[in-house]
Amino acid sequence: MEYTQVPGGVCAAKGFSAAGVYCGIRKNHTKSDLALIQAEVRCAAAGVFTTNKVCGAPVKVDRAHLADGYAQAIIINSGNANTCAANGVALANECCGLVAEALHLSAEDVLPASTGVIGQPMTIEPFARGIPAAAKALNSTCAGSTAAAEAIMTTDTQKKEYAVEFVLGGKRCTLGAIGKGSGMIAPNMATMLEFYTTDVAITPALLHEALAAVVPDTYNQLSVDLDTSTNDTLILMASGLAGNPPITEENEDYHVFLAALLHIAAHMCALHASDGEGASHLITCEVAHAPDKKIARAVAKSVVCSNLFKAAVFGRDANWGRILCAIGYTPGDFSIDHVCVRLASAAGEVYVCENAAYHPYSEDEAATVLAEHDILVKVDMGAGESAAKAWGCDLTYDYVKINGDYRT
Amino acid sequence: MEYTQVPGGVCAAKGFSAAGVYCGIRKNHTKSDLALIQAEVRCAAAGVFTTNKVCGAPVKVDRAHLADGYAQAIIINSGNANTCAANGVALANECCGLVAEALHLSAEDVLPASTGVIGQPMTIEPFARGIPAAAKALNSTCAGSTAAAEAIMTTDTQKKEYAVEFVLGGKRCTLGAIGKGSGMIAPNMATMLEFYTTDVAITPALLHEALAAVVPDTYNQLSVDLDTSTNDTLILMASGLAGNPPITEENEDYHVFLAALLHIAAHMCALHASDGEGASHLITCEVAHAPDKKIARAVAKSVVCSNLFKAAVFGRDANWGRILCAIGYTPGDFSIDHVCVRLASAAGEVYVCENAAYHPYSEDEAATVLAEHDILVKVDMGAGESAAKAWGCDLTYDYVKINGDYRT
Repeated sequence: MEYTQVPGGVCAAKGFSAAGVYCGIRKNHTKSDLALIQAEVRCAAAGVFTTNKVCGAPVKVDRAHLADGYAQAIIINSGNANTCAANGVALANECCGLVAEALHLSAEDVLPASTGVIGQPMTIEPFARGIPAAAKALNSTCAGSTAAAEAIMTTDTQKKEYAVEFVLGGKRCTLGAIGKGSGMIAPNMATMLEFYTTDVAITPALLHEALAAVVPDTYNQLSVDLDTSTNDTLILMASGLAGNPPITEENEDYHVFLAALLHIAAHMCALHASDGEGASHLITCEVAHAPDKKIARAVAKSVVCSNLFKAAVFGRDANWGRILCAIGYTPGDFSIDHVCVRLASAAGEVYVCENAAYHPYSEDEAATVLAEHDILVKVDMGAGESAAKAWGCDLTYDYVKINGDYRT
Repeated sequence: MEYTQVPGGVCAAKGFSAAGVYCGIRKNHTKSDLALIQAEVRCAAAGVFTTNKVCGAPVKVDRAHLADGYAQAIIINSGNANTCAANGVALANECCGLVAEALHLSAEDVLPASTGVIGQPMTIEPFARGIPAAAKALNSTCAGSTAAAEAIMTTDTQKKEYAVEFVLGGKRCTLGAIGKGSGMIAPNMATMLEFYTTDVAITPALLHEALAAVVPDTYNQLSVDLDTSTNDTLILMASGLAGNPPITEENEDYHVFLAALLHIAAHMCALHASDGEGASHLITCEVAHAPDKKIARAVAKSVVCSNLFKAAVFGRDANWGRILCAIGYTPGDFSIDHVCVRLASAAGEVYVCENAAYHPYSEDEAATVLAEHDILVKVDMGAGESAAKAWGCDLTYDYVKINGDYRT
């Protein structure tokens, strides 16, 4: 499969425009806090959400509004999570009503999302000001996507946008995304907020199926700090304007779309981990030759989740014993006797552990490998044919600083 | 039940002596690295060990030597974990042989334990020098216990010793402990190394049963960083020299002993958490009115394990939303609707969350509460009669520093 990276993020696919404005939810005027994404047509839509029993009011509204498999707009604020507030659901519904009014569509086709502090009071006023302004600012070029990507950022240091073109059913199709989230990520449904748009024609049922198929190998394998947010949301809208023969069954076109979705989701996961709160390294763990897929995923996740190994990467210390330790406490019935570990980066590769024991290597060489930003941990379990990846980042002083000072 | 705290740690109970010496495993001469604990008589003995699939060679030897329910000496080194080394088990057995020779007892009655870096080469030479020296230095007073407690420390900043007297079967009995471990703690069998001695007369089977009963509510509820060590070990030896009628069934005396064991284990857990790597706060979470014991334990553990909440405590930020979030992602089928949360310390108590929503409180008052070293998080689930505790610590710059630099 070939993917051509294209600009435009969430506006790259045909039929979508977006905007980002400042509406006053944040005290700081210099950072926008309200994003709007609109589709020209009613779209097939699917979502996956937090598994936290404490869940944001917008998540509850999204689940209801997605029940029919369609949506046409997404309204997102940063600065307040709209979670644990008595009036939360009413407020989220009111926001949908304001969007419906501004864009002349049904309130049931609007999906709200919020990110920020939990349990803070929230009022409709900023939305009443901001939604009409965002509707006026809607823009179908790169600028629209970028404005939206910036408006949803909280502790992110980089906006997260990505889009690719690919051929499906003889047509050039596009799939793009924006996302936010660099902390409170994992263990399941990592991203706080993630919005995908595509012009592929596909039924709501298959759109949901594709999304559900991709998440276990991507977002559920992403961790910054093991904390699952109350507001995790991934929404995927398909306008169908690419002109491909609509996908109505699990045919070849479906698998082309699935592969594109997996490609973009893996890329977004790396963006999130790389921008993990305070991170100075992206840590990717690739597990090969695992006895089954579940164990492969769990082992990869264990490695990128180990605070001790994360701190070692921050210190550029090839402390492979901590990798082995993290593999060893992974739940599941498997042997560690044939586990081999290599550390790799653009600067080279060092073979540090063979059959669960020390493999001679140069500490200087290892330090050179670990001086790079992107670190790859290659785990060969020598016990089967399954593979998986996980994405994480190092644990740094800045993580502690960011999360010790968040509200002040 | 009344407990009188007494000095002497692992030497407080009748029949035990201990020593700590420098034998050259550590490069730094200023810190002792070998501890020896000896009983006058062959003791009923029980142990619980790491659940990590990667486990230290001494753990394998301990399991074998405890199979008959008896032991008479413990030999412990710091500075090298004797884990993932090809000659590990042979070396641990050789150490037992050296102790047996020095103390004129059976090698099968010697229990080895090691803590330090994983995967480093290790030789018998330091032990060959150190074990006869430690045998000569054995001392049944407080000084012996303290020397042993110091020799087993790694990143600990404080030695961990505790002992109590209590009346059982009409006799004054004593139960004491030393322990080490401030990182790589949790999720199961938290402590790296923990040694208990008592003079209570009890069968090996009931000693093991009592230990197994106490661990789920204490050591398994202790977390510094979610990393389960490869060498976690808790060994309990009972000399029987107190003169109590031997405990051979689950009678009243057994429950008196069980209660004493629970008391001392909870105290040791607080010592460990309080000295967590880089910690500036002890965080204790008490869960009340949970639907069942399993949920009570899991919720308490979730709270003390949340990196986000741990960082908030470091920042003295009463960010109760993170507590609620951690409760919400705890596995299990329960409702969060009636969850109430209070933060307490010697400086007072603030009621921050009522029925899963904001409860008005003064941020100044909360900051005063959180300025104390010992912080108590009181969670009322309003849904049953079960309760549990968990112990943890805050996440600080120093945690990252210690674990980024550990081997350098």
